Amino acid sequence: MRAEVISVGTELLMGQIVDTDAAFIAKRLSQVGIDLYFRQTVGDNEGRMLESIALAASRSDIVILTGGLGPTQDDMTKQVLARHLGLPLLTDEASKSGLEAWFSGRGQSMTPNNLRQAEFPEGAIILKNDWGTAPGCVVRAGGKHFIVLPGPPRELEPMMDERVMPYLAALSGETIATKMLKVFGIGESALEDRIEDLISAQQRVTLATYAGFGEVTLRLAVKLRAGEDPEPHFASVEPEIRRRLGESLYAVGDDNMPQTVAKILISSRKSLSLAESCTGGMIAAELVAVPGVSEAFLEGAVTYSNEAKMKTLGVSPQTLQQFGAVSPECALEMAEGMKLRTGSDYALSVTGIAGPGGGSAEKPVGLVYIAVAGPNGAKAERFLFGARRDRGFIRRMAMLNALDLLRRELI
Amino acid sequence: MRAEVISVGTELLMGQIVDTDAAFIAKRLSQVGIDLYFRQTVGDNEGRMLESIALAASRSDIVILTGGLGPTQDDMTKQVLARHLGLPLLTDEASKSGLEAWFSGRGQSMTPNNLRQAEFPEGAIILKNDWGTAPGCVVRAGGKHFIVLPGPPRELEPMMDERVMPYLAALSGETIATKMLKVFGIGESALEDRIEDLISAQQRVTLATYAGFGEVTLRLAVKLRAGEDPEPHFASVEPEIRRRLGESLYAVGDDNMPQTVAKILISSRKSLSLAESCTGGMIAAELVAVPGVSEAFLEGAVTYSNEAKMKTLGVSPQTLQQFGAVSPECALEMAEGMKLRTGSDYALSVTGIAGPGGGSAEKPVGLVYIAVAGPNGAKAERFLFGARRDRGFIRRMAMLNALDLLRRELI
Repeated sequence: MRAEVISVGTELLMGQIVDTDAAFIAKRLSQVGIDLYFRQTVGDNEGRMLESIALAASRSDIVILTGGLGPTQDDMTKQVLARHLGLPLLTDEASKSGLEAWFSGRGQSMTPNNLRQAEFPEGAIILKNDWGTAPGCVVRAGGKHFIVLPGPPRELEPMMDERVMPYLAALSGETIATKMLKVFGIGESALEDRIEDLISAQQRVTLATYAGFGEVTLRLAVKLRAGEDPEPHFASVEPEIRRRLGESLYAVGDDNMPQTVAKILISSRKSLSLAESCTGGMIAAELVAVPGVSEAFLEGAVTYSNEAKMKTLGVSPQTLQQFGAVSPECALEMAEGMKLRTGSDYALSVTGIAGPGGGSAEKPVGLVYIAVAGPNGAKAERFLFGARRDRGFIRRMAMLNALDLLRRELI
Repeated sequence: MRAEVISVGTELLMGQIVDTDAAFIAKRLSQVGIDLYFRQTVGDNEGRMLESIALAASRSDIVILTGGLGPTQDDMTKQVLARHLGLPLLTDEASKSGLEAWFSGRGQSMTPNNLRQAEFPEGAIILKNDWGTAPGCVVRAGGKHFIVLPGPPRELEPMMDERVMPYLAALSGETIATKMLKVFGIGESALEDRIEDLISAQQRVTLATYAGFGEVTLRLAVKLRAGEDPEPHFASVEPEIRRRLGESLYAVGDDNMPQTVAKILISSRKSLSLAESCTGGMIAAELVAVPGVSEAFLEGAVTYSNEAKMKTLGVSPQTLQQFGAVSPECALEMAEGMKLRTGSDYALSVTGIAGPGGGSAEKPVGLVYIAVAGPNGAKAERFLFGARRDRGFIRRMAMLNALDLLRRELI
């Protein structure tokens, strides 16, 4: 079956917001083996919306419309769909009561324009919205399935998972199983080189690489009949891939580098402290995003100034004077000082020049030293992330490489 | 003039990556008064790409294609465009030399497949790529303008700004001036209520609101003839809007909350230190993202554990025992302790329950206390960000509200 997503909203065409809904829906469709060949984005304009819906209905079996379900006159997705299908709009009493309850639960009275959110094309299956005010719906007409969902990601994502996925799974009858191998420290083309023969020889299990920020994802995918187990298929290629990737394979699944490192720390009962300069708390913030990390993460210091490096971490004034704050010596003293201060098993430190200012011929923008202190001593590594890159790029690369360095120490 | 964006790449349809290019391009188009009515996304498939290009060319004057310029067989945007236009592909010698130099500068030899990146439809204007390997191009045919750009945002964004914008400005002859008023602490519908009469009365200057994360942007826009000054137009509505928004208007332009606060600190020569618990370094990381903040930001402590709160910040064991770590008392002692420790003019602290675990009836997930200590003493505020929200939402809202609290102290 073929699906098509139409993202509705002038704000998407103005560039005010980035459309994350479409990517989310795309991922879910691939899980139930429904092909997504096209996506469209259209503004809040009746004529152009009608044109988009007609085009989608002419070439796709399932048309998913997101956005334009709110209370204002600009919100007209259901109205335009009803018009395309030649159906009247009817008020759904359950949705109306739901809206009234939502407002009164917040001590607000409902303005009449909110009633638009309780109107649906005749015959629609209502999709209750527990995460906001506008319910979605499914309308079946002419052998096609039109699915209408609210635009805000915090509503759309649970609506998709809890309301739409069961419907789509029933339609499809086929599933695609995927396995994501996350790779750090090998570029996309080098990775393809390393497994080129496997890509050429691929049969049931298809292989594809996706370059991410500082990392590459290798996607294994296999189409399955209902009830079929994907693991024997994956087992036909995965061991050989793992052998070739070695330690650069850092996770299987959706975990990113911070999640991976946090989980290794927690499961191995090792504690960590952080001394950050140019990353400025970013490593701590990424680790703290992982629930349960409080078991492993003791304390972080954002020592941006030399004074803080001396006072909080015990970096010696001589080191700062002789080698500068961006030096392997300073990185080592930062990590060792933080480890001593907190008594953690490991301490990680980062010091570098994130730019745009502060660079020199000898120490250019993008130069970063990362040190890790652990039970078996400390070591520092030098990284050069490229002076042409912006501050955000250099800081993020420093964060990821610091965590990867710690990961390689831990495993 | 009408433009249309076609984002090319199966990875966009698989949901592996979110398309930020389209939003970026959309924003730029609106700056030169070019209307964007449609966007399409299509996979790496020749037939479907031909279909998309034909559709776009049938209804738009400018077709911008992004992605599919790389060296692999999957990358075929220029090839398919050439086919649509009935033009041969020719190798551009300057691009070829540029590619060879790029590889040899990295000590790598260029594989033959990279030559695809130097091939363009006959008559194309080459757009040099100083940020990656694949140049873009503009092809004019049948009164239409086809603009081809590389997909990676770090290449596309400077290519758009430095290569394409001058071309588009020349085409358009018309500009739209916009002014963004950034508002924190008033919701979108409350904001609309407050300026409803101004929205109804709008003439040359149009007003639109966009809900962002924890904030709302009010966009003033005016279409201008070449050389016309926008300021008199804005001046006809802006003072009244400012009066109604008061302190909730936190910035004009693109600055976000961290950038705004960093700039206030720098310009007022005030120093800051941070004591973060549930935000875990996020406030520090956001501030450090702003170049030049080292003048104002002295030090941050990520005191996730009670021990760190006592040892590093001097929070008393009695406070932790009697009121708990998530309490106004603890927040105040954290801020005061950090201020004392670093000698900063201001110290900001955050302590809360980000979930998913750790909540109770009395102290639910989403409860956060934020304190600010300054020259005139310290105060703590209570926030409840909603137990249904996820950890990331709660932490980000805490970060933004902490910075806003500090901002209101500073102004």
